[in-house]
Amino acid sequence: MVMPAETSAPPRRDPKSIETAVRELAARFGNRVVTSRAVREQHANTVTWIENQPPDAVVFPQSSEEVQDIVRICAQNRVPIIPFGTGTSLEGHVNAPFGGVSIDVRDMNKVLAVHAEDLDCVIQPGITRKALNEYLRDQGVFFPIDPGADASLGGMAATRCSGTNAVRYGTMKDNVLSLKVVLPNGELMTTARRAKKSSAGYDLTRLMVGSEGTLGVITELTLKLAGIPEAISGGICPFPSVDACCNAAILTIQSGIPIARIELLDALQVRAVNLYSKLTLRETPMLFLEFHGTEAGVAEQSERFGEIAKELGGGPFEWTTRPEERTKLWEARHNAAFATFTLRPGSSMIPTDVCVPISRLAECVAETQRDIAESNLIAPIVGHVGDGNFHLTLLIDRDDPAEVANAKAFGERLVERALAMDGTCTGEHGVGQGKMKYLLSEHGPAALAAMRSIKQAFDPLGIMNPGKIVPLS
Amino acid sequence: MVMPAETSAPPRRDPKSIETAVRELAARFGNRVVTSRAVREQHANTVTWIENQPPDAVVFPQSSEEVQDIVRICAQNRVPIIPFGTGTSLEGHVNAPFGGVSIDVRDMNKVLAVHAEDLDCVIQPGITRKALNEYLRDQGVFFPIDPGADASLGGMAATRCSGTNAVRYGTMKDNVLSLKVVLPNGELMTTARRAKKSSAGYDLTRLMVGSEGTLGVITELTLKLAGIPEAISGGICPFPSVDACCNAAILTIQSGIPIARIELLDALQVRAVNLYSKLTLRETPMLFLEFHGTEAGVAEQSERFGEIAKELGGGPFEWTTRPEERTKLWEARHNAAFATFTLRPGSSMIPTDVCVPISRLAECVAETQRDIAESNLIAPIVGHVGDGNFHLTLLIDRDDPAEVANAKAFGERLVERALAMDGTCTGEHGVGQGKMKYLLSEHGPAALAAMRSIKQAFDPLGIMNPGKIVPLS
Repeated sequence: MVMPAETSAPPRRDPKSIETAVRELAARFGNRVVTSRAVREQHANTVTWIENQPPDAVVFPQSSEEVQDIVRICAQNRVPIIPFGTGTSLEGHVNAPFGGVSIDVRDMNKVLAVHAEDLDCVIQPGITRKALNEYLRDQGVFFPIDPGADASLGGMAATRCSGTNAVRYGTMKDNVLSLKVVLPNGELMTTARRAKKSSAGYDLTRLMVGSEGTLGVITELTLKLAGIPEAISGGICPFPSVDACCNAAILTIQSGIPIARIELLDALQVRAVNLYSKLTLRETPMLFLEFHGTEAGVAEQSERFGEIAKELGGGPFEWTTRPEERTKLWEARHNAAFATFTLRPGSSMIPTDVCVPISRLAECVAETQRDIAESNLIAPIVGHVGDGNFHLTLLIDRDDPAEVANAKAFGERLVERALAMDGTCTGEHGVGQGKMKYLLSEHGPAALAAMRSIKQAFDPLGIMNPGKIVPLS
Repeated sequence: MVMPAETSAPPRRDPKSIETAVRELAARFGNRVVTSRAVREQHANTVTWIENQPPDAVVFPQSSEEVQDIVRICAQNRVPIIPFGTGTSLEGHVNAPFGGVSIDVRDMNKVLAVHAEDLDCVIQPGITRKALNEYLRDQGVFFPIDPGADASLGGMAATRCSGTNAVRYGTMKDNVLSLKVVLPNGELMTTARRAKKSSAGYDLTRLMVGSEGTLGVITELTLKLAGIPEAISGGICPFPSVDACCNAAILTIQSGIPIARIELLDALQVRAVNLYSKLTLRETPMLFLEFHGTEAGVAEQSERFGEIAKELGGGPFEWTTRPEERTKLWEARHNAAFATFTLRPGSSMIPTDVCVPISRLAECVAETQRDIAESNLIAPIVGHVGDGNFHLTLLIDRDDPAEVANAKAFGERLVERALAMDGTCTGEHGVGQGKMKYLLSEHGPAALAAMRSIKQAFDPLGIMNPGKIVPLS
């Protein structure tokens, strides 16, 4: 893999070029180009400890053709482009470290087609997952991927996100059939046909999913849909240890139970939930579960899970198929993120995630809990245990440099621990700016060089979301 | 996408370079370098009407390191490399149009690890799917992808193949967790960790799956496994028309029945099967089905399918969970390929496949059957209807130029028809040499330029399986 020295080097921040580009954009898009400080700051990352690096302008296009025009103007002036969905990413994906133009696809939020017989739909990138499912509900189908935020589908594809039911329905890589992408040269590329499978050439769809706007701007998505299950059962099951929770997940999957959701809350997270939701759950590790299928099927699955839990010293597993009761049971899980604040009111939340082979999950969580205790940190854990993926939310005082340094050092150990177990530095949050430094140790020099050469091939000017994913040479 | 004029231009066939490379290989690998005409011809394509284009030598490496040495020697001499598994691909993938060295991974056929808790295994590329499943059987797990041939897993990944149960278990793109790949510069790249999901950078795994040896040589695979189902039910269901078969498939999938296999045989294929297997099946379109789950689950699924079939004028649906009876029922399907010969003894089989959105499948098959009749061809149809994918086997006299031309023109119309329905020129056979000419109309100029730029980035010397997938400029 030959890498020229200037590969993907970011354009220097040239105020004159930016001024020219913004003037040309304003001439083309009028008041859909915004340069106010407040709007620019809203469009840069603010969720984590990564500093806010606002773009120079924000544009609100309404079509693929308009995105092509924006990209062409930026390319001519060598000005960075930062695609923007809802801004709910967690690793600085939408920051503008070299300035440039944020392309906010908010107004490109239409459902273009629903093909119920094919179980797919064609949408614009700005629609959020909740809005899409609202739209689909009457047709008996839904889009299953559910990250914590009500993110845009374009952003979800760009970050290869997943959520609580990836164990059953997969991640974005498994649920995008095709994309339209405006490439850094302004050309519009379609990555695949609408056929369910194909062996016709390189998998451009999967290359774009997870590329975080560094190879192009997604302007249309064809997504797989799932039928709304005839019956859903759900429930909570306490366990004596995280280890027992993980073993229950392993046995459940091994025995072929097609579980839809299997979510771990550690004891600290359960305490937070109790405090927040005024509940009296036992403060012990707990699994939240959901089964999708026929009436008879979900009953059988639930009973079988109950037996597995009992064998492992867990239970009782209380489950129900009634929607209102399920909602109540799951409320605690849904409120987990907000609930963490109750553990340290006034603190800042720093979320992070790693993912390991499921056989190593219990060990990884246990070591991490020890590390949290030894580091005097507060960090409840929530895990998508069916995937070996877990999150923790560090509650810190961002104004205390010692505490920030302590938390950062902990975060590095967390990633090293996951990598040592054949895991990844991020299961679903993505690389952005925050995890670039781990890619070399995760992937090794040959794979990283391959990623760089792809970036160079697609974006020789280095204008597409520079400073993300691939470390600059 | 800037494409230099000489992009991936194949090395001219330079006898002196080849001689040097073969001499260096012989010095390194001794009698594991073979240059006999018979062995070289065995290693070039012979299944279709594409002419046999043998490599100049065949090497049999035993490790990733040895593959690296071979690639380095070839790269130094600018000699083409053609990775070889079992040679069962159907579109000339293993042909050597510019000569060069075939790397036969036959001896790299070990299972390196089975992680039962994680439902994955690590293998070398030369092991075949049947040998792998034989090895795994005692551990209660299996690898589900089943192309017609007993292909090598390396070849299956390289061609992004699938088979009869992709509707339930996905294709190779869904079942490869990670690959080790020797890149054209001789470096060894690992595409991903063993974690079940990751958002850490570009999806190199999926880029390699389906790249047909044009970006590197696969030397190790980490594969997802599935638990052997507790119960399997299967059966055959006749229908009045192909249209009714397709509608049954659509309704089955829409209603959430997790069907494992749903295979169409058209009336002509059923006749071939009757002739070959001395059966008396009704010569009408037929679905062959299989359901995986618990005892109660497969019974419920089978009954529900029976109701759907009845509504559509099909049936009776005869099903059983007894292995010996299932095997008997499925025998006809398994023998379908061989059975076609009975329709025209002494002829040559030319297999091909396309894939369309399932809502268009009935229409596509019906138009294709009309075309077959009007073209005076004999071509029974078998379809993986759950995916919208169907195969047909043209039975022709390869020594009759008019007949060959007629069949080729038919093949072009078949692809055009599939593309017009938002389908693909190949659902699972791959591009190889045979379908290169369709990629531009399938993907459009921007996507094809993107594929070319990837090829150029990975293989600037154009030595990796040249003359496949990406048309040369």
